[in-house]
Formats: sequence, C-alpha cells, structure tokens
Amino acid sequence: MPRFRLLVAYDGTDFHGWQRQEPPGLAPLRTVQGELERAVRDAVGAGSPVVGASRTDSGVHAEGQVAAFTAETRIPVERLAHALNARLPDDMQVRGAEVVDDAFDPISDCTSKCYRYRVRFPTAKDPFPPLFERRWTWWTVHRLELEAMRSAAGALVGTHDFAAFAAAAHGRESTVRSIHGCTVSMPREGAIEIDVAGNGFLYNMVRIVAGTLVEAGRGRIDAARVREALAGGDRRHSGPTLPPCGLCLRWIHYGPKPEAAAADEPA
Amino acid sequence: MPRFRLLVAYDGTDFHGWQRQEPPGLAPLRTVQGELERAVRDAVGAGSPVVGASRTDSGVHAEGQVAAFTAETRIPVERLAHALNARLPDDMQVRGAEVVDDAFDPISDCTSKCYRYRVRFPTAKDPFPPLFERRWTWWTVHRLELEAMRSAAGALVGTHDFAAFAAAAHGRESTVRSIHGCTVSMPREGAIEIDVAGNGFLYNMVRIVAGTLVEAGRGRIDAARVREALAGGDRRHSGPTLPPCGLCLRWIHYGPKPEAAAADEPA
Repeated sequence: MPRFRLLVAYDGTDFHGWQRQEPPGLAPLRTVQGELERAVRDAVGAGSPVVGASRTDSGVHAEGQVAAFTAETRIPVERLAHALNARLPDDMQVRGAEVVDDAFDPISDCTSKCYRYRVRFPTAKDPFPPLFERRWTWWTVHRLELEAMRSAAGALVGTHDFAAFAAAAHGRESTVRSIHGCTVSMPREGAIEIDVAGNGFLYNMVRIVAGTLVEAGRGRIDAARVREALAGGDRRHSGPTLPPCGLCLRWIHYGPKPEAAAADEPA
Repeated sequence: MPRFRLLVAYDGTDFHGWQRQEPPGLAPLRTVQGELERAVRDAVGAGSPVVGASRTDSGVHAEGQVAAFTAETRIPVERLAHALNARLPDDMQVRGAEVVDDAFDPISDCTSKCYRYRVRFPTAKDPFPPLFERRWTWWTVHRLELEAMRSAAGALVGTHDFAAFAAAAHGRESTVRSIHGCTVSMPREGAIEIDVAGNGFLYNMVRIVAGTLVEAGRGRIDAARVREALAGGDRRHSGPTLPPCGLCLRWIHYGPKPEAAAADEPA
C-alpha cells in the first residue's frame, strides 16, 4: 500500500491541539489529527492512523505541519489534497500531498523545523491590541527593543543543554538540542516576529524562548543572562512561557542534516 | 449631558450585524450595537441608545465605524475607550472617544465614507483559499486581471443613479449617489483590495460594485457595460452581490463636503 506525506496548515484557535483525544465515555475533543483522520477515512476508506511530525499544543497554529498515512486509494495523488480539503473544516487545509517511501516517519526522519512566535505591542499610531490578527498574535503592553532581543537571540544559537528552557514535565532523557537560527524581525513598528529553527524542541521550549526574548526586549534579561541560564539549566533563570496563540509551526525539513540553516527558509 | 463620539472596530464574523435585534420571546441576537450598549450601561450607568453611522450587515467588518451616545459620567473622556474595552468581547474594540456637539448625528452629519472589499484568487505560488485571513477575505477560483478591474472602477466614479447597483429592497426614494473614488490594488499577487469612497451607499451597493469589478477582472464586464448599467438602472446588468465576509467599513468622514476625495485616505 502506498504511503502519503501531507503538508497541513491550520488556525489552531478552535482545536484542542494536534493529537487525537477521545476521553472514555465522552465525546472526542476537536483535534487536528481527529479531523484529518476522519477526512482520510471518508475519502479513501480505511487507512493507517495519520501521524504528525509535531504534536502542537491546543491553540498553536501551523503553516507547515507534516503528516503521513498509508492507504489504498484510487484517488490520484495530485487530487488527494483537493479531495481531503473538500472534507475538512475551513480552519485547516491540506496544502500538498506526495507519495513517499514506506518507511517514512514524519517524527524521526525530521532534520529541522522552524516555529514563528508573533508579538504585538502598543505604538503611538496603533495603541490597541490586535483585532483582526488576535487569533494568532500575542499582545503585550510593554514596548520591546528589537536590538536587545536580537542580542539575546544570538546567545541561544548552537548546540546547548536547554534544560532551563523546557517545561518541568518535558519527559525527555536528554535536554541537549541544536538551534540553527533564531532571528527577530519587526516588519512594522509594534509587530515582532521571532523565528526559531532547530533539530528539535523540548516541551514548551519555543514559547519559553519567546518569553525570554520578550524579557530581553523589556531590558530585564540580556545575552549574558541567557548564557548563564543555558549553563545553569535552571528554569527559573529563563523567561515566562508565552501563550500558545502567538505560536505557529512554519516548516519541517527532511533531508541531509543541516549544519547551520537559516531560520527564515527551509534549508 | 455630554455627547460622545466613538470610533469602533470589529471583526463582524460572529455578529448578527451592527443593529440591535431583540426578537420577541427569544434571546437577543449578538450584535455590535447590543454589545456596545451593554458596555456603555455597565461603564457609565444609564445613557441614550448608541447610534451608529452605518448599519453594517451580518458578517461585515469595521475598522472605522462611528457611533454616538449621550450620558452623564465621571469617567474622563480620555479614559472612556479603555473603560469600554474592558467590558467588550475581544472581537470588537473602541479605538477613540471624544466629546462632540449635542446635535451630532453620526448618520446625517456624515459627508463621506469608505469601504474596502478584499478578494483572493489562486496563484501558482499560493493555490489554496485563505486560511488565517479567511474571516475577512472572499475567495474566488477565477484569476482576476487588475487593469480590467481598474478600468471598470473608473466608470463608477462620479454622481450617478446607482439603481442598477442596489438590492431590490433598498427602500430609498432616490438612488442617486456620488462615488468620490474607486481604487483597485493588488498588494501581492492573488490578493485584491477594492476601496470605494462616496457620500452614501444604497443597500448592498458596495458588495454589488465589488461583484461587478470581479466580473470585469474575469473579462465578462467592461467599462462600457458599467456605463450602460448605470444609464439603464437595471440590476440584471451589474454583477453579483458578493458575500459579506470580504467587506470592511474603513472610515467615515465628518466635515466640509469633499468634491473629489481619494478613496484611500480620509478627506
């Protein structure tokens, strides 16, 4: 049976995250995986479960989630995205489908992925919280200094023990990860985008990185303090975990391990 | 008692339009006016009804709706927007408040207003319907030619009988209106913005204008045909009424009557 790889995007606001959740005796929660598996069953009949590369949390968005499933179907692969989209709700969509090797595993084959965290703060011209962008932007009343954020971001790049940047319940043996790039940009005054690319992330790691950079933007943490947090491994020395609404999974890369990929482009 | 003028913005997706609706024996529908009057009552105690300049339809958005009410309050006017926002849901906000003349009438004092209609169509780079922008963008599968739309838009500018561009139930004696500007822009490939400014609009007029310009973009209506529709006054000669989701009230102007204001800036 052929195996398919899907590129999946979603507005995570109204989902209980990626992972299927069927509490015993209760109605299943609305999840991205649950909706996608329902659409796959409906379009192609029975198939394997749909495995996602990243189990994004409740409220987290994706432009480039990768998922895979195995099934027999008469739908040509070039029509598969269309067939699934016709069966999906309007807050998620399949943006690509291809046939891949039987052994393709979206989780363990991944070599790098990139998340973006979007923050807005008040300016003289636009002092109000985001209205139309509120579902995927986090709002802070504090003015943020771009250069201070960039300086702190630079200290995160490289291979480090990120124990200080993980939620207590991260459940991983090793907390060593490589961040290939961490860029902070301000496409317009008051709107900050933090892009973080790496070979993998601990639980809540990107939201804690974003929280640490926001503290840097407020002048409360600097690059030296970030290096101390990395060296000490103490969660209390990094910044707060920002809310999920600002976080978006941008892309996932499968290929030769990149040594130093830029954060803003698939390597 | 002082009279206040408010600048109001909302994502209209989850509202049954501007106008308060309290069907007898049923729960009131969720409307912008209803939410705003509730917030005003809560913040300042009793007051006059809140009158809005434009009774936007269900699903239509606003960045620059203007509303007014009269009430006694100890809240300083510079704190009023903040006090109301603390009592409003997150899909609407008050972006400004000022004290105005007792006689200020947001409807009859208006000299011009501007609406924007947002359309997206598929491109090679981005063939899928808008996901994150889906709440305020209309999607068509047809490729649109910008210059053809601009040419048709030019034929609408001026003072005309817009009978052919009004819903049958427009309920107005005169269908003569002045369009001060009608501009079509494409900030990026596949994303069209139609801005229409005028001294007033008939029921559904902007959505019919947008539908006519989309027909022009598809090569099915040209400027000559628009002039014929204006001259003949027959609704069947203009384009379809596009859905409300793409429509946004951008600004309303109160001041000396402009002769030929641009569509993209308050005169």
